[in-house]
Amino acid sequence: MHTAATNQLVLYDTTLRDGAQGEDIHFSLSDKLRIAKRLDEFGIAYIEGGWPGSNPKDFSFFSQVKSLNLKQAKIAAFGSTRKAKLSVEEDQQIRLLLEAQSPVVTIVGKSWLLHVFEVLKTSEEENLAMIRDSVQFLKSHGREVIFDAEHFFDGYKSNKDYALQCIKEAEEAGADFIVLCDTNGGSLPWEIGQITSEVCSSCKVPIGIHTHNDGELAVANALWAIKAGARQVQGTINGYGERTGNCNLISVIANLELKMGQKVLPDGKLKELRELSLFVDEIANVRPNPKAPFVGRSAFAHKGGTHVNALQKLLRSYEHIDPALVGNHRRILVGELSGKSNIVLKAKELGIALEENNPNIQRVLNKIKELEAKGYEFESAEASFALLLRKILAPYPSFFHLMEYHVSIRQLPSKNYKVCEATIKISIHGERVYTVAEGDGPVHALDRALREALVKFYPEIGQLRLEDYKVRIIDSTEGTASSIRVWVESTDGKEIWSTVGVSHDIVEASWLALFDSIEYWLLKKTENG
Amino acid sequence: MHTAATNQLVLYDTTLRDGAQGEDIHFSLSDKLRIAKRLDEFGIAYIEGGWPGSNPKDFSFFSQVKSLNLKQAKIAAFGSTRKAKLSVEEDQQIRLLLEAQSPVVTIVGKSWLLHVFEVLKTSEEENLAMIRDSVQFLKSHGREVIFDAEHFFDGYKSNKDYALQCIKEAEEAGADFIVLCDTNGGSLPWEIGQITSEVCSSCKVPIGIHTHNDGELAVANALWAIKAGARQVQGTINGYGERTGNCNLISVIANLELKMGQKVLPDGKLKELRELSLFVDEIANVRPNPKAPFVGRSAFAHKGGTHVNALQKLLRSYEHIDPALVGNHRRILVGELSGKSNIVLKAKELGIALEENNPNIQRVLNKIKELEAKGYEFESAEASFALLLRKILAPYPSFFHLMEYHVSIRQLPSKNYKVCEATIKISIHGERVYTVAEGDGPVHALDRALREALVKFYPEIGQLRLEDYKVRIIDSTEGTASSIRVWVESTDGKEIWSTVGVSHDIVEASWLALFDSIEYWLLKKTENG
Repeated sequence: MHTAATNQLVLYDTTLRDGAQGEDIHFSLSDKLRIAKRLDEFGIAYIEGGWPGSNPKDFSFFSQVKSLNLKQAKIAAFGSTRKAKLSVEEDQQIRLLLEAQSPVVTIVGKSWLLHVFEVLKTSEEENLAMIRDSVQFLKSHGREVIFDAEHFFDGYKSNKDYALQCIKEAEEAGADFIVLCDTNGGSLPWEIGQITSEVCSSCKVPIGIHTHNDGELAVANALWAIKAGARQVQGTINGYGERTGNCNLISVIANLELKMGQKVLPDGKLKELRELSLFVDEIANVRPNPKAPFVGRSAFAHKGGTHVNALQKLLRSYEHIDPALVGNHRRILVGELSGKSNIVLKAKELGIALEENNPNIQRVLNKIKELEAKGYEFESAEASFALLLRKILAPYPSFFHLMEYHVSIRQLPSKNYKVCEATIKISIHGERVYTVAEGDGPVHALDRALREALVKFYPEIGQLRLEDYKVRIIDSTEGTASSIRVWVESTDGKEIWSTVGVSHDIVEASWLALFDSIEYWLLKKTENG
Repeated sequence: MHTAATNQLVLYDTTLRDGAQGEDIHFSLSDKLRIAKRLDEFGIAYIEGGWPGSNPKDFSFFSQVKSLNLKQAKIAAFGSTRKAKLSVEEDQQIRLLLEAQSPVVTIVGKSWLLHVFEVLKTSEEENLAMIRDSVQFLKSHGREVIFDAEHFFDGYKSNKDYALQCIKEAEEAGADFIVLCDTNGGSLPWEIGQITSEVCSSCKVPIGIHTHNDGELAVANALWAIKAGARQVQGTINGYGERTGNCNLISVIANLELKMGQKVLPDGKLKELRELSLFVDEIANVRPNPKAPFVGRSAFAHKGGTHVNALQKLLRSYEHIDPALVGNHRRILVGELSGKSNIVLKAKELGIALEENNPNIQRVLNKIKELEAKGYEFESAEASFALLLRKILAPYPSFFHLMEYHVSIRQLPSKNYKVCEATIKISIHGERVYTVAEGDGPVHALDRALREALVKFYPEIGQLRLEDYKVRIIDSTEGTASSIRVWVESTDGKEIWSTVGVSHDIVEASWLALFDSIEYWLLKKTENG
């Protein structure tokens, strides 16, 4: 008698366990609880919370997650089959799995003889007994048991009979799901498809799929297994995970719902996909991948002139789906190839209604052309572009004027002495403000001096943070005297915006980008109340 | 008569054209030339250089690339079929394609009726004539012609007969390759496989595949098409490209050579895969993706306790391939694994004979580890790496000592006054030299002051030129106070070399890279007489 419904395809999230193995991922206990809550609200059926036997933080998760009163998700505790030559009752790790008191327990076991011999250093028979004993024991304690067959595809390719015997053992012991794992991520989609199909036809228990992205094929491998009959798909939000990451559930969900007609989410949830992706990145302190399929900032960004032109004639001519379906939106990038239509579309995005024959459009185009000739690029500096549009199409009063800045950098290696200092003089609201600050470098010092000058008038400036900063030499044939483009990404904790500055002098270019960033923030702040 | 060999699978790189459509990608002309040279050395068969009809920079590429005397790659110019209702001879864009004088011309044309009607606003017959005329015209001028069938899979799904008619038209007009494009990136692998297989069986001309990553399936889609009979695969290095990017050639190559037994590179080149990936990222000023399959810094990084433990028993238990095959290496996130043989090879390149058991190798490895932890990258800064090796393995006397530098930058926008000045104090050959210079920015001023100080002792320093200069923020979570890596490329008119410097202060980082560059040049000069 299997606890799980056998016909419905279910999502199994392992962001909190396998995802946390990613090199750059470090979750605190409260991070894990917040993510579990969000995944539950989103409609993920299974949430793997951690390995209670591996560390106290994971163990605490299972007691604390109960107080969240999740709406629908089942929490799974992860562990492994019992140790070789030890009774299951005596295995400390299995005991902790029970003590986690989760409704679901997922245990990983070997199905590749190479690993049985070389890693477990045990026999074929003992490994089978380890699988059987562990599944039976957990079932006898009323758990829904999921058996993850580690390295299943490698095992199957090297010894099909033994690999099948391992999962038969789990099935007969009462496992509710058997999950085929491409642990090393090296299998090709057609291998996954064929093997999954063979397994599905020889097992009664529902089959799941767990893939990794080592060949850049994790999503395809998972989809192929589902097509071949798998009823559970394991993965992580945004593809977090060891090495190159696990299968990205975000892309799997979108492909299933929008391309394969397989409903896996409650009604109305798909349009929260982008929000979920950003939420988890935010908690994990990972910079969102702008190129992330479906949900990335650039996923529906159009730069090529021919594409933009075609989009005006046929809205979705260069889009595989309507971006709104996954909570994303189209972006028209303004650059070298822009024409009037780009400007009109862009102004509309910014809430400025504009007719194609408005003479100011030509003024905007001339200004862009002039600035691009100097080395500006607006494709990835939308805030600077918005300010440029506003200045011509809907002018606003300036917030402050720079009167003077001075930067001094002195280094005496022999005396191990180094100082970088900036002074800044601005006029603001009729006052003259003069400040000085030290910094790690000229831009840092200047940034600090400017904030110091503004904080009296705009105390919230403390929320403003520089997220990223890039420098690019434009015409590289003149070496250090070439033009320099500085790109800055800023945030106030809610929104992210990018600005750009160009000059022969890196300090001035940085200053211009910083200035735009602060002006954009001030404009937004004053206009939104 | 088809110019292209029909049995061999060939790689077609479009990093410089479709890749340049990526939101964050901005190539200068010299960037494009450098990448073309590297791709040729690596063994890519076709290099698409740009769209001569779209901008002057792309047009110049085709004249300048000739002087590179590429070893084996064929350069392709990209364009589209002629305009509707215009003779092919009168079409300016087609004329520029011929004027580019590339051996190969790739033209994109419609194969989806929706686009014919709604975007081109023309008829079924006229679109077929546009394909036929354009291919015939370019063939009659002796070009190898590749026909990119845009939106082929969408077109095929909506009107199979018309889509096939489009490519038949190109075939009969003499096209050497017909490339099926999943332009919107929305197709599933099994659709791509089935349709490609049907097309291959109905055409004599070899078929190519061009995919995009909108569904996170670009690599799988390309591999599936190859399995179904495609003989050309188009993509970009690191998957650059519009929206979510093009098919990543790096992963395609590795999967083909290591998983599918399809040789696509000259002997010995596969192990340069990681180096190529980093090289292109560096030129494009794109932060390398640590999770990039095969070549990423984390691709063979092991964090999980059980994995690390298993690795000790069985070296490749959690790796799908030997990382050395693609020039990558294993990283154990606790403890360290040596690359002694790499150092021996590198030293040999520099003319330093070294035994594997030389204790200085460990000192070199420790130093690299220490510097990499600070943010240094030596893959693309071989001169700095050579100096590092020399300092430990074959020390040389230093040429001069920096005693002090001071940079001052003052700007008064209201008075239109701006000055940037650097003073520098060095000791050289027992003398103390003190110089001052102005510059366009702090690095320029410092560079000029240093040259001024050295010119009396090394008059040939006038030949030294900075070719390129790039700045990258390493840890971007602290904004302007993050570490900064400066990469500099220099030349004396004969040789080109690259150096690197890292600091919290951009001026100091630049100074370190400049210093290495000059020291490398002085060392070379004194040792070669």
